[in-house]
Amino acid sequence: MAEADSPEPRLLIIDTDPGVDDAMAILMAANSPEVRLIGITTVYGNVPTALATQNALRLVEMAGWAHQDVPVAQGAARSLKAGTDMERIADFVHGADGFGDVGLPPPRGSPADCSAAEFIVRTVNAHPGRVTVLALAPLTNIAQALMLDPALGNKWAELVVLGGAFFTNGNVNPSAEANIFGDPDAADLVLGATPRLRVLGLDVTTHCRLSGADLEALKGRGRFGSFVRDISQFYLGFHKEWYDLDGIMLHDPTAMAAVLRPELFEWRSGAVRVACEGVTKGHTVMDASPKGFHGHHGWAERPRVQVALGARREEVVELIRQRLTA
Amino acid sequence: MAEADSPEPRLLIIDTDPGVDDAMAILMAANSPEVRLIGITTVYGNVPTALATQNALRLVEMAGWAHQDVPVAQGAARSLKAGTDMERIADFVHGADGFGDVGLPPPRGSPADCSAAEFIVRTVNAHPGRVTVLALAPLTNIAQALMLDPALGNKWAELVVLGGAFFTNGNVNPSAEANIFGDPDAADLVLGATPRLRVLGLDVTTHCRLSGADLEALKGRGRFGSFVRDISQFYLGFHKEWYDLDGIMLHDPTAMAAVLRPELFEWRSGAVRVACEGVTKGHTVMDASPKGFHGHHGWAERPRVQVALGARREEVVELIRQRLTA
Repeated sequence: MAEADSPEPRLLIIDTDPGVDDAMAILMAANSPEVRLIGITTVYGNVPTALATQNALRLVEMAGWAHQDVPVAQGAARSLKAGTDMERIADFVHGADGFGDVGLPPPRGSPADCSAAEFIVRTVNAHPGRVTVLALAPLTNIAQALMLDPALGNKWAELVVLGGAFFTNGNVNPSAEANIFGDPDAADLVLGATPRLRVLGLDVTTHCRLSGADLEALKGRGRFGSFVRDISQFYLGFHKEWYDLDGIMLHDPTAMAAVLRPELFEWRSGAVRVACEGVTKGHTVMDASPKGFHGHHGWAERPRVQVALGARREEVVELIRQRLTA
Repeated sequence: MAEADSPEPRLLIIDTDPGVDDAMAILMAANSPEVRLIGITTVYGNVPTALATQNALRLVEMAGWAHQDVPVAQGAARSLKAGTDMERIADFVHGADGFGDVGLPPPRGSPADCSAAEFIVRTVNAHPGRVTVLALAPLTNIAQALMLDPALGNKWAELVVLGGAFFTNGNVNPSAEANIFGDPDAADLVLGATPRLRVLGLDVTTHCRLSGADLEALKGRGRFGSFVRDISQFYLGFHKEWYDLDGIMLHDPTAMAAVLRPELFEWRSGAVRVACEGVTKGHTVMDASPKGFHGHHGWAERPRVQVALGARREEVVELIRQRLTA
């Protein structure tokens, strides 16, 4: 179906907890010829999982995708070791409905009748080497997919993870970024499971922003501009209150930009571990050291992954703006 | 005893595990009118504690201090939670004798008949507000002193800690710096015990170096130049082997420079926690965030301490060189 002179679009699954910035990342896909979205899987984080599923269905309908072309598969409601504990839900960031409390009608469609993990395993195996998985939320579904099929990390084209705070502070607390904090055990498993992995976190995404005026300027532009502007007002308020910032950080859209144009980022190669216990639980430590270490340590046998430590942020933001308003 | 026009020297206790770079820091004190060394306490790390004591006695004698003026008090042989486990000793960095295996004769003097922790408590209480404690090793003795006298952190002038890797990799493994790794529980206790605390670690000290040629040039200069040059050859070999570096990192002397001239460093204020378990054990996380965090976290009630994140490294190195060769 691709034009003779343009490459075949990459197949894309987005694992997500929409969420204001998740919505932006997903809607970007509708205006991005480089990728063809073939499914969305949902998990807790910005909202509980069931609401994430409803919101994903809403976004599929808004983008005009047929539900059979972009199925939504519901994933885990709890982290790997949560037991029956409730997860931390960031409703103070995204509003109780995940979309800034704008009051959307329910979606018309329904989720697929398989789990997120099953969907990922099945879809990646159906198109070996061709599927990119973009993970925008706690990594529980991805970890479960790797438990179902331990060879999965050699079958996807690439896993792109939004998460972590490598040489900077976290956003849940000084050590932990929210997605990794949501399921540190899953994150430690996933980040050590495959070299076909890029990860980008707060070292980069906090610097990719739209101002309040930028958001206003989206109004009426393209199919999604007004929606994005509207759902972002609550999120903008959160940034005003907690960062004294007249603007929003574009975490998830920046991760989508990394799928579309990885060359806009500075990638550094190294093994990553995640603290799974104690006061620094959820902290991500990358081995960026040029040297080895004397004696054994927990990074030694891990695959080196690509970690974004910088970006050409103006170009990233411009790409996001363009794809949101086309 | 001070000159009429120069300020009273600050009283100084050094807690140490000599060690090549510890020796440099201690010998610097002999040429530094800003401080008067009034005791050395010893602990494990670069060498086992008993050998640290022998080496501290050797340095006192080499510097020409009377043993009653600069007593050496022996401290803990094990970390707080080590039980009967042996500690990790960095003989591959400093040689089996801690001084590059140069073959020194035994010291003439003997250690004081109180423990390191008792010595620190007694001495700080004898000169309230006047004693600076410079900690160059795992923080077990300092933690024990704070257990003996929980108000100690309001009685010393300042505690200056060499340790940690805040926004950079460790040197024991990607997450942990050696002094903090040596006793993470002690470090988490000490770094949260008092606002009268400066800490500097690998973010700064890895950049303060002498080259192999710089070391050669020390030969014959002042009382200590040849000794420092000789004991540094093994340490230089370690840097060649593990960092491919023709030079040595001046960890402990840089900490001494921070006692003498804190204005040469960029200090940032924030609470610090230490990971005490799991794969990132010994990792130090400072809250350098300008914002607060939603919900409780483990940094919230901690005193803000001063963390060095940068230095005017040429001036630091020049100060060290000058004090080692005077």
